Amino acid sequence: MRFKIASEVSYAISGPSTLILNVHALRNGAQMIHEESFVVEPKVKCEEFVLDQGQNRFVRIETGSAKELKLTYRATVDAQVRLIPIEKLNAMTVGKIDRNVIPFIYPSRYCQSDKLGRLAYSKFGKIKHPYKQVSAITNWIFENVQYLSGSTNWQTSAYDTVAERAGVCRDFAHLGIALCRALNIPARYFTGYAHQLQPPDFHACFEAYIGGVWLIFDPTRLAPLNGLVRIANGRDAADAAVATIFGPTRSKAVRVSCEPAEPGFKPLTSEQLLKKGVCLDAP
Amino acid sequence: MRFKIASEVSYAISGPSTLILNVHALRNGAQMIHEESFVVEPKVKCEEFVLDQGQNRFVRIETGSAKELKLTYRATVDAQVRLIPIEKLNAMTVGKIDRNVIPFIYPSRYCQSDKLGRLAYSKFGKIKHPYKQVSAITNWIFENVQYLSGSTNWQTSAYDTVAERAGVCRDFAHLGIALCRALNIPARYFTGYAHQLQPPDFHACFEAYIGGVWLIFDPTRLAPLNGLVRIANGRDAADAAVATIFGPTRSKAVRVSCEPAEPGFKPLTSEQLLKKGVCLDAP
Amino acid sequence: MRFKIASEVSYAISGPSTLILNVHALRNGAQMIHEESFVVEPKVKCEEFVLDQGQNRFVRIETGSAKELKLTYRATVDAQVRLIPIEKLNAMTVGKIDRNVIPFIYPSRYCQSDKLGRLAYSKFGKIKHPYKQVSAITNWIFENVQYLSGSTNWQTSAYDTVAERAGVCRDFAHLGIALCRALNIPARYFTGYAHQLQPPDFHACFEAYIGGVWLIFDPTRLAPLNGLVRIANGRDAADAAVATIFGPTRSKAVRVSCEPAEPGFKPLTSEQLLKKGVCLDAP
Amino acid sequence: MRFKIASEVSYAISGPSTLILNVHALRNGAQMIHEESFVVEPKVKCEEFVLDQGQNRFVRIETGSAKELKLTYRATVDAQVRLIPIEKLNAMTVGKIDRNVIPFIYPSRYCQSDKLGRLAYSKFGKIKHPYKQVSAITNWIFENVQYLSGSTNWQTSAYDTVAERAGVCRDFAHLGIALCRALNIPARYFTGYAHQLQPPDFHACFEAYIGGVWLIFDPTRLAPLNGLVRIANGRDAADAAVATIFGPTRSKAVRVSCEPAEPGFKPLTSEQLLKKGVCLDAP
Repeated sequence: MRFKIASEVSYAISGPSTLILNVHALRNGAQMIHEESFVVEPKVKCEEFVLDQGQNRFVRIETGSAKELKLTYRATVDAQVRLIPIEKLNAMTVGKIDRNVIPFIYPSRYCQSDKLGRLAYSKFGKIKHPYKQVSAITNWIFENVQYLSGSTNWQTSAYDTVAERAGVCRDFAHLGIALCRALNIPARYFTGYAHQLQPPDFHACFEAYIGGVWLIFDPTRLAPLNGLVRIANGRDAADAAVATIFGPTRSKAVRVSCEPAEPGFKPLTSEQLLKKGVCLDAP
Repeated sequence: MRFKIASEVSYAISGPSTLILNVHALRNGAQMIHEESFVVEPKVKCEEFVLDQGQNRFVRIETGSAKELKLTYRATVDAQVRLIPIEKLNAMTVGKIDRNVIPFIYPSRYCQSDKLGRLAYSKFGKIKHPYKQVSAITNWIFENVQYLSGSTNWQTSAYDTVAERAGVCRDFAHLGIALCRALNIPARYFTGYAHQLQPPDFHACFEAYIGGVWLIFDPTRLAPLNGLVRIANGRDAADAAVATIFGPTRSKAVRVSCEPAEPGFKPLTSEQLLKKGVCLDAP
Repeated sequence: MRFKIASEVSYAISGPSTLILNVHALRNGAQMIHEESFVVEPKVKCEEFVLDQGQNRFVRIETGSAKELKLTYRATVDAQVRLIPIEKLNAMTVGKIDRNVIPFIYPSRYCQSDKLGRLAYSKFGKIKHPYKQVSAITNWIFENVQYLSGSTNWQTSAYDTVAERAGVCRDFAHLGIALCRALNIPARYFTGYAHQLQPPDFHACFEAYIGGVWLIFDPTRLAPLNGLVRIANGRDAADAAVATIFGPTRSKAVRVSCEPAEPGFKPLTSEQLLKKGVCLDAP
Repeated sequence: MRFKIASEVSYAISGPSTLILNVHALRNGAQMIHEESFVVEPKVKCEEFVLDQGQNRFVRIETGSAKELKLTYRATVDAQVRLIPIEKLNAMTVGKIDRNVIPFIYPSRYCQSDKLGRLAYSKFGKIKHPYKQVSAITNWIFENVQYLSGSTNWQTSAYDTVAERAGVCRDFAHLGIALCRALNIPARYFTGYAHQLQPPDFHACFEAYIGGVWLIFDPTRLAPLNGLVRIANGRDAADAAVATIFGPTRSKAVRVSCEPAEPGFKPLTSEQLLKKGVCLDAP
């Protein structure tokens, strides 16, 4: 499916700062960028880069003497999802999984899986197949955590959310990741553009590694799973923040959009997928 | 019911210390102390006292030059419980409850009810009657928290237990108290001697204030509710520790017993009480 | 010294609620209330009370069908402070202190002294006299914690403040209390009206029990120590909140004032006191 | 300098488990492995691997039906250190640093730099050069945190250590890393063999990225800086644990040694380095 995505972020700057921005659509086998533009107003020093490890596309921006900054990204992206029959996914023990996903079993800043083992095992340990375990985790979060704007901040972690039971998409994703890892299922953070998300914003959800593929799960149920355009992956939001600011700069406004660029988009929800016995790997 | 209770606590002392001990059975309308003895070997300076607020009986001990200390308490106690028909308990709003129980709605060191409101309301908020709410809390803890000796320490609090899902009687009680207070039900910590507790030790559970009386709840289900002899109440274990040590002294061994001193003891469990439609206020 | 104090708190109410208010000046040997008035608009059900334990004066208010509420308290209060020569204060071990202050050695919700022992001993353990220890604690907080409105919330505790190094008067007080208790010095929370506090608001600081008296310490240095009118004491803010709200009511505005009602007020700061070799017990 | 290193780790196994072991000396430009052996008794399935990202050498072991396992690693390693004049290290802003070190500015599981900014800036923010900042951090940890075996566990993080002030080498390293990152200095975890460490064990310290090189710092001062053989780097101990166990297996015993294999080893401590105005990059 082809999507037109756009984001416009503006900053007020009271002294020279460095920004590391991560709003560009990622390029990989399942996601092709048809065309894109990135405009920085006023013009300041920018460097686009990809880390040696990973595919996330960063822009490092030096504000120099600018007092304000407006960053506009626009792209047309072909994002392919695959429907995979659940029955084809084989459970894999830690002894068998691809070594490169091993880091995604370990705890990270906002996903303290090392502290949530007992909770994860008591709630989801008896479920046989890892796909069903992760589905159950995703549903449990949806049912037990309240989506509440402003209830958390950028320091909130999965450990807090287990007790406090409220958060935003980022917190839902962190809890999902932590519970998967606690069960030795590799899991990672996903940020992207999301069609039909209300109010429009950057979105976060998570992926779990099952049967040799990364599958997408969204405990917020706020956007169709086939309406996502991937920006970045990471162990958690520490790796894949939309913007990291070094210096006296603060965000003023964010505008985000994600619309199909061709007719015929049919939203797929996780309930529908489950009925059909299929799951989705993300673009 | 009449019980013979005993506790023997011994300490190794490497320098002058002060101990505040709280092992004496409490005296009140429901609990009469028939006879008791408290022996300190070797003889050191001791002062028994009751705070102006509350009925807990403390002993302050100055170790002086002693290198070891053995404290033996024995008592025969008549502990009365009342069976109260659940239907007679009227729910009371904060606006109506006895002002002296108001402090037991507030959060305390190990019972961070201020952080558990959403969890408490989502799990137990729709239950109509406070007695049924507290019963549901008690059952939920039993079902969701693993009793595991050594899994926690004296710094562990309800906030931790919600995430980590393991603990001992003290942790079970703290979580019960925190969840009650989060629902505006006054709740307090209970320590005492417990018949049939295995392995024998001091026990902790909690009380909730419903319909004008303090009712006993034990999420561990490790002892019959009518086999308890009360030592102390408090907001949590900070108020009602068996021993608080100031100085280079450490506990070596603890022996505790609690046996009926007359025939005919029939253990009552919370399930049995629920079937009969009655509940229990503690001695 | 005679002070005129006033507070006006208004609420927006979207459903029947109970408020427990604690804004009345406390009555004790050092603080005499000359005249006072408490007006609730519109008229709703109010009950003033004092707990059996403690002297704090609470008002329990049932909002009934009111949609808004304005609570106005005004009083003229004679608040006496005593200047006590520091040299007259004898250090007291736990073995000697008045048993009724023992609860103020224990940790409480926002003052986790049980977790701060090593910090307290390494920083202040070698200071000989408890008065100098508490002075050093107070100065250390002033120098190491930034006063920053909005940086914390009502769940913030001393454990957080040690790491995060920012807060408001409440957080400064909690940290002071926790560090004192970690050194076995009884300490309690103080709320009151404070002359010259900018911006005017309710104030919080703390008291430590030294040489048989409660002495006042203010790590914020935002108000003269002899310009305080006491509202309440408690183990921490859980005991002495200005208002505790049960139900869908939220605070809209707060106005507070505290002015001398007679000429000749000379502000005393802790530096001045220290120079003179005296300290202050609070009204 | 050439070192002979050895480690022997044994496990008791009560069911099929997977171990991921990380005890092999790392291979890079500064560290050459002369000879090595790795023996697993009894023989079970082993796979040695290096992640696509990073150089750490892992062994994945499937215990199969083994009831016990003994893993013995021995190597002779040439580990070169470079002495770098401090004056040659140029401070670099986030805008200039190598993009591949950017992940080491972000917070991680045990290094919550996002929560320690104010502490880091107030204590070390005024120091001009990053090398002096990190030296000051290292000294501060040595002076303010007590090395105390058994005082922490594998869940302990820098946020805890700031308040609790005790820990082992792992905790010292985590705190150092967190404080560096809070100042926007990239920092990473280091595990290795350490000559003269008492009692012998695996060691952990940390590296900071200054002037384009990774420099070694050891807040424990328990081993000479030129007596280290590197095993692994990572964001924190989650990335570089000596062993991660999946399944019912527990560690029984660990023996570690690290001895010079040629004459003439002269231990260099950080004090000595500082006097000479040089610093050390690790092997």
